Amino acid sequence: MRVLVVNVGSTSVKYNLYEMDTEARLAAGRVERVGTADATHIHEGGSDRIDGRDVTGALRAILAHLTREGGPLPDPTALAAVGHRVVHGGEQLVTPTPVDERAERIIEECAAYAPLHNPVNLAGIRAARAVFSQVPHVAVFDTAFHAQLPPHAYSYAIPHELYLEKGIRRYGFHGPSHQYMALSAAEHLGTHLSRLKLITCHLGGGASVSAIEHGVSVETSMGMTPLEGLVMGTRAGDLDPAIPMLLAKQGMAAGDIDELLNRRSGLAGLSGIGADFRDIQQAAEGGDPRARLAIEVFVHRLRKYVGAYAATLGGADAIVFTGGIGENSALVRSKVCEGLIFMGVALDERANETKRAADHGGIVEISAHRAPTKVLVVRTDEERMIAREVMRCVVGPTATIRSVRA
Amino acid sequence: MRVLVVNVGSTSVKYNLYEMDTEARLAAGRVERVGTADATHIHEGGSDRIDGRDVTGALRAILAHLTREGGPLPDPTALAAVGHRVVHGGEQLVTPTPVDERAERIIEECAAYAPLHNPVNLAGIRAARAVFSQVPHVAVFDTAFHAQLPPHAYSYAIPHELYLEKGIRRYGFHGPSHQYMALSAAEHLGTHLSRLKLITCHLGGGASVSAIEHGVSVETSMGMTPLEGLVMGTRAGDLDPAIPMLLAKQGMAAGDIDELLNRRSGLAGLSGIGADFRDIQQAAEGGDPRARLAIEVFVHRLRKYVGAYAATLGGADAIVFTGGIGENSALVRSKVCEGLIFMGVALDERANETKRAADHGGIVEISAHRAPTKVLVVRTDEERMIAREVMRCVVGPTATIRSVRA
Ligand SMILES: Nc1ncnc2c1ncn2[C@@H]1O[C@H](COP(=O)(O)OP(=O)(O)O)[C@@H](O)[C@H]1O
Ligand SMILES: Nc1ncnc2c1ncn2[C@@H]1O[C@H](COP(=O)(O)OP(=O)(O)O)[C@@H](O)[C@H]1O
Repeated sequence: MRVLVVNVGSTSVKYNLYEMDTEARLAAGRVERVGTADATHIHEGGSDRIDGRDVTGALRAILAHLTREGGPLPDPTALAAVGHRVVHGGEQLVTPTPVDERAERIIEECAAYAPLHNPVNLAGIRAARAVFSQVPHVAVFDTAFHAQLPPHAYSYAIPHELYLEKGIRRYGFHGPSHQYMALSAAEHLGTHLSRLKLITCHLGGGASVSAIEHGVSVETSMGMTPLEGLVMGTRAGDLDPAIPMLLAKQGMAAGDIDELLNRRSGLAGLSGIGADFRDIQQAAEGGDPRARLAIEVFVHRLRKYVGAYAATLGGADAIVFTGGIGENSALVRSKVCEGLIFMGVALDERANETKRAADHGGIVEISAHRAPTKVLVVRTDEERMIAREVMRCVVGPTATIRSVRA
Repeated sequence: MRVLVVNVGSTSVKYNLYEMDTEARLAAGRVERVGTADATHIHEGGSDRIDGRDVTGALRAILAHLTREGGPLPDPTALAAVGHRVVHGGEQLVTPTPVDERAERIIEECAAYAPLHNPVNLAGIRAARAVFSQVPHVAVFDTAFHAQLPPHAYSYAIPHELYLEKGIRRYGFHGPSHQYMALSAAEHLGTHLSRLKLITCHLGGGASVSAIEHGVSVETSMGMTPLEGLVMGTRAGDLDPAIPMLLAKQGMAAGDIDELLNRRSGLAGLSGIGADFRDIQQAAEGGDPRARLAIEVFVHRLRKYVGAYAATLGGADAIVFTGGIGENSALVRSKVCEGLIFMGVALDERANETKRAADHGGIVEISAHRAPTKVLVVRTDEERMIAREVMRCVVGPTATIRSVRA
């Protein structure tokens, strides 16, 4: 059975086509500069200029490409479903959800918490339902994996009415990545998820940590929105809530505060160099004091979350790293784990420097041989995880081979 | 040498008079309902209605009481100094500071970060300088003990210019209490502070945690203002910074958001019962679900900080509890320490239930006999700590007997 996973951003459409009996990836590509006259479709065979002045045009080009003579899809009805990544599902959409009017309406309502993402995701779903009109569409939510957070973890200490009336609570994001890390770790460790306590660190442009107990996310660092938590590329993460209020009192407009904290803060704001961790690491090696500070703040905050979640779990069996920074920065992993021997964490520094998840089937162990808490690096695959979740929705739980095995 | 410590609040003036050669407390009292026609001076001998329509009146009554026939102070010039507790000293006032024009000006500037406290503290200093006009006045800051926070701990991940130009950084509060806990713990453990790693938890109406390494505060949970960090009586503590912005976008005025997060949140907002932990604990025992949630959120957040600071310190020699909740709630201490054996923490539950710091010279150990991390309960004494700091300012560091010994 084939599943097409679509991820619609503000200027791009990414897609992956899977044969789910084997989880083989049959095709992958993306359309860039959607909405301009220069829209370009990049695929295995090269790249084409297309008519992608809107998302519908981009999706038509993708459909034509997949169903071309000799392409991986004889016709659209060969798809079991089209899966859509949606950032925010709120409290109502917490499992992979067949898209209908009601689902669309809730996605629209959740735009209050994810104003940058949900409207774009919804536009993508609507366009895709028109282009791939004969197959079911399934929405998979970044928030869904955290739907079982216990009340003591999801509640803010604000009047209870604000939760009941406005849905102000912690939701968490990056669900597919945390779920994928947990499944991969369980498989690698040869232990059923129901017997594991894991701390999963997704460190990419956005970044979040989760505490996973028996396969369930019981704490996570992003909150009502993806602004809370770790230091990210351009997002501030944790902040005294008095700071946005101080800026507002000093005359800054709400939209500018939003922009400041979401787009000009984080590693970019601290370093003054930009959001790319490679550039910052290079500048730090060259002695740049602000680049060094940016890395130190990033690492210090992450260490605190690792300790906090170890306390939440009562100790962890493994710490898992992924994302562009988590997979590639031996420096970050080394600094985060430094001095954590008191809680059973010790790195094999040579393995940390030299081993790459990509060279070991997507997962590699970098902890010292006898350290009780394993440290793993995983090459995350959110699209594959979404495809599995789509199958769980379309066929039922037994269909998702790896989810069940791990 | 005698030191009078004065703590001016919005409707009260508290005072303590010490003979610092022995640290004996010679007098203690408070004037309540300052600013009304009902101002009342409560002291060892009972209580008097006084003319306390302003702070000056209250201070005059205190002076008259202390210098009365047979009182503890022959005349005001017998004071080595008057010490004032001031909430925010910013980056410039980081040691006990003789009050002059410059100091008053900086305290005034720091009102930007502590609008509820600094103006009141300053008015108190000005009134006291008029009433006790012949003796030196020394300001001791809640922020001062945290002045050596390293940059990676005090920096928010926002554009660096906001720190340089507006002083937006973490400062930390409750300094005298954290410092007092650290000194008491060192004395109790018979180990010099320079060899200890401590996690100090001040859990009162306001609440904060600090990580103390070699006597220096290296992390603390309150930030630019006392709003950040733990759940408190009426303050929200940690919060997605998008939440105040969401409320503002929905039309709530800045002052109302301030009021919501500072005065109607925390334990009071979660429980719907009020800010008093005893009432909440009682309601929880009676089965009230919101009271239970309030306690669970309070404890969960504190556990996370304990784990985070253990990671920051690379393990802790002791965890210290104080404040109305920290000293008195065996429930909170038990839940916080539960399952932390992985990091060396285990309570002696019987000692936790039955032993009181007040019955053991102000400090008592409640950890299991062989647990590597000690758990201590301390009866904090911020006024005494302030008096010691005043002496350090007036006479020099060798004067503060206990600070030097511990
Ligand atoms: N070799 C590397 N060393 C350090 N950081 C890296 C390396 N490769 C990629 N990164 C960083 O990873 C981040 C992007 O992560 P990624 O997961 O690709 O982002 P996104 O969340 O946008 O998908 C960037 O900050 C990038 O600099
Ligand atoms: N026996 C007790 N059990 C639980 N909580 C207590 C007990 N006694 C006092 N408290 C709580 O301590 C808090 C006040 O702490 P305190 O340090 O006196 O406050 P402040 O910070 O205002 O000086 C209140 O929430 C109160 O309910």
